[in-house]
Amino acid sequence: MGKLEHTNQADQDGEFALIARLTGALESRPDVILGVGDDAAVLDLSPDRIQQSGAALASVPSPGIVVPANSQTLLLATCDAQVAGRHFLPDVSTPEEIGHKALAVNLSDIAAMGGEPLWALVSLFIPSGFDLALLDGIYVGMRALARQTGVAIVGGNVSSTTGPLIIDITLLGRVARDRMITRTGGRPGDALLLVGEVGAGFAGLLAWGTTTMESPKPQMDAQTLAAVRQAMVAPTPRLAEGRALAASGLVTAGLDISDGLAADLGHLCERSGVGAVIVEAALPIAPAARQIAEAYGRDPLELALFGGDDYGLLCAVRPDGVERALAMVSQLGAPAHIIGRLIERPPSDGMDTDDRPLRLQRSDGTLLPLTPRGWDHLRHTP
Amino acid sequence: MGKLEHTNQADQDGEFALIARLTGALESRPDVILGVGDDAAVLDLSPDRIQQSGAALASVPSPGIVVPANSQTLLLATCDAQVAGRHFLPDVSTPEEIGHKALAVNLSDIAAMGGEPLWALVSLFIPSGFDLALLDGIYVGMRALARQTGVAIVGGNVSSTTGPLIIDITLLGRVARDRMITRTGGRPGDALLLVGEVGAGFAGLLAWGTTTMESPKPQMDAQTLAAVRQAMVAPTPRLAEGRALAASGLVTAGLDISDGLAADLGHLCERSGVGAVIVEAALPIAPAARQIAEAYGRDPLELALFGGDDYGLLCAVRPDGVERALAMVSQLGAPAHIIGRLIERPPSDGMDTDDRPLRLQRSDGTLLPLTPRGWDHLRHTP
Repeated sequence: MGKLEHTNQADQDGEFALIARLTGALESRPDVILGVGDDAAVLDLSPDRIQQSGAALASVPSPGIVVPANSQTLLLATCDAQVAGRHFLPDVSTPEEIGHKALAVNLSDIAAMGGEPLWALVSLFIPSGFDLALLDGIYVGMRALARQTGVAIVGGNVSSTTGPLIIDITLLGRVARDRMITRTGGRPGDALLLVGEVGAGFAGLLAWGTTTMESPKPQMDAQTLAAVRQAMVAPTPRLAEGRALAASGLVTAGLDISDGLAADLGHLCERSGVGAVIVEAALPIAPAARQIAEAYGRDPLELALFGGDDYGLLCAVRPDGVERALAMVSQLGAPAHIIGRLIERPPSDGMDTDDRPLRLQRSDGTLLPLTPRGWDHLRHTP
Repeated sequence: MGKLEHTNQADQDGEFALIARLTGALESRPDVILGVGDDAAVLDLSPDRIQQSGAALASVPSPGIVVPANSQTLLLATCDAQVAGRHFLPDVSTPEEIGHKALAVNLSDIAAMGGEPLWALVSLFIPSGFDLALLDGIYVGMRALARQTGVAIVGGNVSSTTGPLIIDITLLGRVARDRMITRTGGRPGDALLLVGEVGAGFAGLLAWGTTTMESPKPQMDAQTLAAVRQAMVAPTPRLAEGRALAASGLVTAGLDISDGLAADLGHLCERSGVGAVIVEAALPIAPAARQIAEAYGRDPLELALFGGDDYGLLCAVRPDGVERALAMVSQLGAPAHIIGRLIERPPSDGMDTDDRPLRLQRSDGTLLPLTPRGWDHLRHTP
């Protein structure tokens, strides 16, 4: 894999390790239904619950899901940031698109929980000398998406910085107590439903990114370039799909795939204590992503599994609910595909920390061990 | 005034103007009790309220306070960030103090609303090559204060940046519907109660800051230097005082004074539609701040009124409740002083945009017009 992925992947690994390091054995409260470790925190504002808990804190090394019986509506809270040059390219995205994406990535987290987004707080870190007209454009894009999704911007702050422009958004939402989707609950035999396509987010970075080593750009048709650019600069949060799937009761676990399909499937499997098989032939790789991958001499499958920035939803679906779930998502206009299944978690061989319980079923029928970092061509398993 | 204040004040003015520009005529929702413009947003998570509102958004140019009757507990949400070199000095603060302050400034906002802090989301922006051991220290300080104040850290994110270290925290809390303190509601005749002392935050910056033009440092005794350093690097949020004052029903309006006493009093007056008189002789200027000011040839009053970073609470108190409010705060161990009173808002002369409805009553009895930027020695008013 090229320099770009390697950098991204190393950063991502470092990020996961750092978060684990900083949030290990965090103190919790009884009103924290779900803390660090899912797409959003799940919190219980009901006063009964809080009065019981008082200010007492218990050390909960690995917060489980304990849903109190006395509240029907739970609060969701998530935050995600966009750093110029890292999460968006100021020379490629318009200000409106930058604002759109800053909110969209947070909406995707609420969508993954089956929630309804409500309120946003927006922190801006502005380089000195930054053109304020661009900020107006960023707000135009952010507010347009907020309006469209029913979100009110209720707070925030503005700081100057000697570094790059940063937009850090905290998004709050709500979810029905008995209808939320978490990463926990997937069972062997569940089908893996993917809402959306994969590959285009990273293909956009390949085709438009200023940090790649490949230049000059291969000649591409404008339509293909526009398609992957759109995926990169203005992803679509799958809010209606997430809520419909949550309401259906057919989904046992789910999350968004912003970190990359393989990495996020790994998160789901770890939280649910299962393994998974992805069927290569079933992956809905965006046609434009295939073309870009070929033009740059890459395997489209790499982009689909490890690229990230695709913002689809990945859900484990009860075996008896597959057709209904597919129909439900298709009716909402989103691509819907069964891309694999959950299996029993295979016992670790204890030899290799990279041996994760994910398998890729190739078109010739072989199964390859799959890690968020790649797959191992040398260790075929029957 | 010297370079340091001028820069800070210009930045602050720019920040206020920018926030006004970006948040003008923001869309709201019926469940937004109070949006941008107070220390924290006030939100109603009750499902009835939200079901009524649906996803419909109304354009509310200046959000008023409309408290629905159907919910007793409201959600508070605030976010504030610490940028290295701007909000803290990495060569002066220990990592533990940096973490403490990052949470403390947010706790101060919840305190100002009379609320109870509950949950925090922590966004970190980390320069490449940053020593991770320092991050551990930052988390130690942040978690110690979280534990002490009953706050659970429930989420966040980590990004790398080419800029300075930034810690951006969103803090959520709750407040009783009929007990919250806002900037609106102050009435002529109310006494101005200050919880905490003033001047030390900025004195700390004078004595310890690396950005001042004054060097070498005057010889100061260690105790004075330690006192202002403490105020600057590890402010005390006035949570118990804020909740007690809110519960008392004696407070008509309030806020924290992180922007500086004069600037924040200006905010309160603007929101409440009143004017105010501050009595110079009544100001509790921290003794160490006086010494630092004198050593640097500054007027201690400047530090007290315009310095900022003091994190006390400023409350308008019903005239008949002054003694009870003072006793209540004193009992909690915090400095409590009546520093002035609210008056009718004087009509603007229309000639000077800096003519704000604040007056400073000097020791000789004269009244000077006071702006967040300074006071005008040339225009005495009777």
